[in-house]
Amino acid sequence: MAQSPLIQRLLDELERLPGIGPKSAQRIAYWLLNTDENQARRLAESIVEVKQNIHFCRNCFNYAQADVCPICADASRDQTAIAVVAEPRDIVAIERTGSYHGLYHVLGGALSPMDGIGPEQLTITELMGRLVDSGLQEVILATSPNVEGETTAVYLARMIAPLGIRTTRLASGLPVGGDLEFADEVTLGRAFDDRHEFS
Amino acid sequence: MAQSPLIQRLLDELERLPGIGPKSAQRIAYWLLNTDENQARRLAESIVEVKQNIHFCRNCFNYAQADVCPICADASRDQTAIAVVAEPRDIVAIERTGSYHGLYHVLGGALSPMDGIGPEQLTITELMGRLVDSGLQEVILATSPNVEGETTAVYLARMIAPLGIRTTRLASGLPVGGDLEFADEVTLGRAFDDRHEFS
Repeated sequence: MAQSPLIQRLLDELERLPGIGPKSAQRIAYWLLNTDENQARRLAESIVEVKQNIHFCRNCFNYAQADVCPICADASRDQTAIAVVAEPRDIVAIERTGSYHGLYHVLGGALSPMDGIGPEQLTITELMGRLVDSGLQEVILATSPNVEGETTAVYLARMIAPLGIRTTRLASGLPVGGDLEFADEVTLGRAFDDRHEFS
Repeated sequence: MAQSPLIQRLLDELERLPGIGPKSAQRIAYWLLNTDENQARRLAESIVEVKQNIHFCRNCFNYAQADVCPICADASRDQTAIAVVAEPRDIVAIERTGSYHGLYHVLGGALSPMDGIGPEQLTITELMGRLVDSGLQEVILATSPNVEGETTAVYLARMIAPLGIRTTRLASGLPVGGDLEFADEVTLGRAFDDRHEFS
């Protein structure tokens, strides 16, 4: 349609965001046009400041505002366990469960030879550095249960084995609240393989 | 979770946007963290520039970057019809249909005594000014088919009647592609009332 160029530009930028299609972009753009200027400015500033001030934690490669991320800086966390994840957003998902109180290590991706991502592209050297001569009692390989994630977990498990640290993998199975009939056959098969005593 | 304060602030700002819940905000924030700085900056600038440079068209009260909006500025549009809508976003929806090539007038809302919105809060005086002694042949009351929209349409139809300009209302009925059994009874009733010869 005959849209003002600045509005069209905003729509184009909004549509680049993940999960935002033309209709959502339209809705957000018109909401921004309608909202008070301070609110819109706060959002814009917030985007710029995050880009300027957030970098990788020098310890675990999570996003951090200071030298180390809030989790590494928190002395009350369990210092004997480390969960290895592909991306910082995986930490958010795990933290949300409230099931884990240890440390993390962000790989920065998962092994994917097809996409040119080998061990050198990930923070595996840094992970091994953290594991050697550490007081760690468990490394949880918390990569996704897909081809890349499994490959990465298998690779890491072999690297870590000589260190003699207990190495675990997240359980696969039926999603809680899900319907058995809608589960794919691989997941359902895994749920059978990994079945446990009724408790 | 223990999130860096700047990231938490961005999440809070994103969650204020319409249709963006905590999970979408998370997804967008981490996408922004991951994307190159220019891309993020372009979005931020775009938001600020829209707020600084977009105002209401002095003619129809659509959003405009210049004195008048692109539709009012387009001499090839049908100058004999005017569609009256509640909000600028309604123009976008109508333009998307490609069914209408006339002018618009944005009321800035719909009559809603409960919310303190009376005729003075809307651009009705300005609309009447555009209609008197104009070459207009049709006013299409394109307010929403809800209580406020209908009230507004009835009110406007009475105001416009003395001018002797043809005044029409958008048709109500079953949504195209919708299922008859899922239509609410008012809509289905309206579709019966307004049935037409099979053509």
